Amino acid sequence: MIVEKSLETRVNLQDGILSGPFVSESIRTLGQLKGFFGDEHARMRMPQDTVVYKVQVHAKEKEGVSGGLFFGTSFLYPGLVGDEYFMTKGHFHARLFCAEYYWCIQGNGVLLLMDTDANWHWERMYPGSLHYIPGNVGHRLINVGDSILSVGACWPSDAGHDYRSIVERGFPVRVKKADGKPAFTGSEA
Amino acid sequence: MIVEKSLETRVNLQDGILSGPFVSESIRTLGQLKGFFGDEHARMRMPQDTVVYKVQVHAKEKEGVSGGLFFGTSFLYPGLVGDEYFMTKGHFHARLFCAEYYWCIQGNGVLLLMDTDANWHWERMYPGSLHYIPGNVGHRLINVGDSILSVGACWPSDAGHDYRSIVERGFPVRVKKADGKPAFTGSEA
Repeated sequence: MIVEKSLETRVNLQDGILSGPFVSESIRTLGQLKGFFGDEHARMRMPQDTVVYKVQVHAKEKEGVSGGLFFGTSFLYPGLVGDEYFMTKGHFHARLFCAEYYWCIQGNGVLLLMDTDANWHWERMYPGSLHYIPGNVGHRLINVGDSILSVGACWPSDAGHDYRSIVERGFPVRVKKADGKPAFTGSEA
Repeated sequence: MIVEKSLETRVNLQDGILSGPFVSESIRTLGQLKGFFGDEHARMRMPQDTVVYKVQVHAKEKEGVSGGLFFGTSFLYPGLVGDEYFMTKGHFHARLFCAEYYWCIQGNGVLLLMDTDANWHWERMYPGSLHYIPGNVGHRLINVGDSILSVGACWPSDAGHDYRSIVERGFPVRVKKADGKPAFTGSEA
């Protein structure tokens, strides 16, 4: 029996766009990111339907299945809220010990990483940069360029997402534009 | 504290080549693939140091760590053993229920898949094709093109590899060149 699957899923190797079956997309607008940026007044003065990022996910497993994987691409638009670069909410995994791979497809970004004691470091993202995010490490994408930042990702289907720890405690630093360049500042700044 | 990791790992988005720390490489020659191809006499008549495929792996976890992931690229050269296309050994995961993602970076291939009851199907591989290999499914790459087949992969660090089931039972079909095109034939053919 020769069977070729008629429904094929594709990832555009230039921009990371996923197409085909089992692909879903979600969008995060400025209106949905209340409290994440340092300058809340600046965020409120901007059009609330401004898309900050989109996430596409290829999922052939249900969330929570052990041994399974998900595959996705994050598209983070360029922009500023006040002087702070557009960024994702960031998350830990609900099952904290679960890892994730990121690889940058296009654009220029910062991958901000912190452990559960808020020790942090960052990694430079550029086309072809590869990033292993081990368990117990929260991660956030920041677009410090002038074009879209596309990042491929693969993670366990039982990892889950914990956004609340980020809402409650934040990351220990913010990435702001200063003299035309990214600068790291304390989160209270 | 601003720390940028000085040692960066990169994946070449055009050909899948990994470079930087934590990357290892292994090679499979014709001499190491005794018993995998249908025409063992043809295999023996060829130079035994002919490289059939290379695998690069980025590993920041030890094999067996729960929740972790590995990332790699397989490079399968074009060629024939008799009329059978160059292919990988193929494997199940030692922890059978573990999944894997493949995505084709360059070349033209066939992804041969079979379950533990030897039910099989195949998926066409071409640049940008995305393939989810669920748990309990053995998988083998076959290069049916004239150039190198590069395939990206991500899999759980506790998946492990079971090659022995393939050695003992084989896949139910072989992919051979017939009239210049791939054809699927029974493994006894």
